[in-house]
Amino acid sequence: MSAAGDCLPDEDGAACPLPATDHARVLLAHGGGGRLMQELIGRVFLPAFGNAQLAARTDSAVIAIGAQRIAFTTDSYVVRPLFFAGGDIGRLAVFGTVNDLAMCGARPKWISAGFIIEEGLELGVLQAVTESMRAAASACAVEVVTGDTKVVEHGRGDGLYLNTAGIGVVGHGLDIAPRAVRAGDVIVLSGDLGRHGIAVMASREGLRLETDLTSDLAALHEPVLDLLDAGIEIHCLRDLTRGGLSAALHEIADAAGVGIDVEETAIPVHPDVAAACELLGLDPMQVACEGRFIAFVPASDLPRALQLLRGHPVGRAAAAVGSVSRRGASGVTLVTATGVRRALDLPSGELLPRIC
Amino acid sequence: MSAAGDCLPDEDGAACPLPATDHARVLLAHGGGGRLMQELIGRVFLPAFGNAQLAARTDSAVIAIGAQRIAFTTDSYVVRPLFFAGGDIGRLAVFGTVNDLAMCGARPKWISAGFIIEEGLELGVLQAVTESMRAAASACAVEVVTGDTKVVEHGRGDGLYLNTAGIGVVGHGLDIAPRAVRAGDVIVLSGDLGRHGIAVMASREGLRLETDLTSDLAALHEPVLDLLDAGIEIHCLRDLTRGGLSAALHEIADAAGVGIDVEETAIPVHPDVAAACELLGLDPMQVACEGRFIAFVPASDLPRALQLLRGHPVGRAAAAVGSVSRRGASGVTLVTATGVRRALDLPSGELLPRIC
Repeated sequence: MSAAGDCLPDEDGAACPLPATDHARVLLAHGGGGRLMQELIGRVFLPAFGNAQLAARTDSAVIAIGAQRIAFTTDSYVVRPLFFAGGDIGRLAVFGTVNDLAMCGARPKWISAGFIIEEGLELGVLQAVTESMRAAASACAVEVVTGDTKVVEHGRGDGLYLNTAGIGVVGHGLDIAPRAVRAGDVIVLSGDLGRHGIAVMASREGLRLETDLTSDLAALHEPVLDLLDAGIEIHCLRDLTRGGLSAALHEIADAAGVGIDVEETAIPVHPDVAAACELLGLDPMQVACEGRFIAFVPASDLPRALQLLRGHPVGRAAAAVGSVSRRGASGVTLVTATGVRRALDLPSGELLPRIC
Repeated sequence: MSAAGDCLPDEDGAACPLPATDHARVLLAHGGGGRLMQELIGRVFLPAFGNAQLAARTDSAVIAIGAQRIAFTTDSYVVRPLFFAGGDIGRLAVFGTVNDLAMCGARPKWISAGFIIEEGLELGVLQAVTESMRAAASACAVEVVTGDTKVVEHGRGDGLYLNTAGIGVVGHGLDIAPRAVRAGDVIVLSGDLGRHGIAVMASREGLRLETDLTSDLAALHEPVLDLLDAGIEIHCLRDLTRGGLSAALHEIADAAGVGIDVEETAIPVHPDVAAACELLGLDPMQVACEGRFIAFVPASDLPRALQLLRGHPVGRAAAAVGSVSRRGASGVTLVTATGVRRALDLPSGELLPRIC
């Protein structure tokens, strides 16, 4: 395996092929939301599809159709097992896409549902997942308006993979994206970290985590739309899925070209999550949530933002956890309980595979 | 296994569960575009998600956003092998979604790309597929604006599954859907049948079909937009993917509540497709295309429609192949070379699994 930098023009003098990463094959870790996934996106997908939408590195693309702006996003779901404490793949697929739309400040409206079913899946399981999607969509006032079904042979899937794409309507005039982040912005975290990842792990056979913890899986559009309705000048939003808070902060710091400081003591973590992370050798900052987000807002908007978020069940533990220190530098610094400053690690790959 | 009609309320008097089909597990055939897939949609998905969009049984949902109408669609792609004569999964995923948008008369504009990668896939393969998507999108003037990457363990996938969702802009004022089909409408077929299915089969190891046939895979939006620009009053459009011409005609006849007659001798089939079908025991009418469609138009528009279609490389062999006989009856009748009328079979399941 050679580094991309070793590439030399071939005998015909043709340009080098697209630079490969240091791994000639895709690893599980390439799907983990960490450094390897960023490399894959940066080296394979962005060079091919490069456009302003993708370059913005937001959870959804924001598109103008005449005078109207819409948000458009997609996610596939490969969570294992299909049913876990606090949710299932159907609810996850609806809320996950609703949340990606919400992270652009859009009101989620329409979603698609693509099923890749492994031959032999019990119809009862498919019906239960479908019913869960229906209930989740209904709770968010979104409609499943188009879909597709594929079936693959036994041994070529894992029961069920789902894809949802979504369209939302953007009713605000803000630019909610990493590029809008400013020095002095305060970072608000909507709740405690890591319940989703730990709840899914605890639902796996063979792993005996003693906890009653359930996933934080929840739809996040209502608190976000509340902030916007109240005139909070949101600069950036990100839900804390694969790679957790750590990956989200790193992505935004990199894309915005800013430095970020976060206060370790301000970040809520449930004792069961902390204990499970201790046991599994994980950092709660890197564990996926499916019902938590961060918002970058001007310091002057902080008190109102916290008050509004705490009025929602999903935002009751909202807290200011950090700030944007400066432009022109990138990097995330963790300030520990003892006041020590250290670089916050970006997860390399997937610590908890197939968590979403 | 009991038929759905056998369901009785349980002891608590609660309603019956969602009716199961006659098969308690999902079969490969449920993904085949035939009767079993229609049952799955009708018994599982429509009852859960039922809304006007899904009920219209079109390839895309058509949504009003203010004064603008947009089309929205999704498809997953599980074709095996990933590269086949005349195309690959990336080109298929872009053109397939472009075509679903075109079948509502929309101009395709933006697509999403969801990758489900099996651990161990060569990065070179992923790059080749991505490059193929880029080229296909560029050829259709669509942008890949949002995406997602998941990786599953070796043995839980098959190299690569793709999902694309798409958004198109509807510039016409017609209602292009089965419900718009009228008695007396003529059915125009854009070209010969079955090349895609046979080309994919011929690309599989172990199957030695002696043919140089390549897939008919092509983007269809340009001929469709040409028809609309010329003022052709299109009542319904359908591309001939899984289940081929037969499934498309049956779906439209059922949804529209009309009878359809098709002339066997008017339907072009390449000799190599006919020979391969003979060998494999297939009916060319049921074999998937990825670059063919049917249009239902008033008889008065037929000459212009044929002329316009034949001006496009993908429509050079366009022909009138049938007509809508009456409302209030459903069913598709094939009129053979000898004048015999017989019911056209709807494929039950998947004769050629994982063709798209």
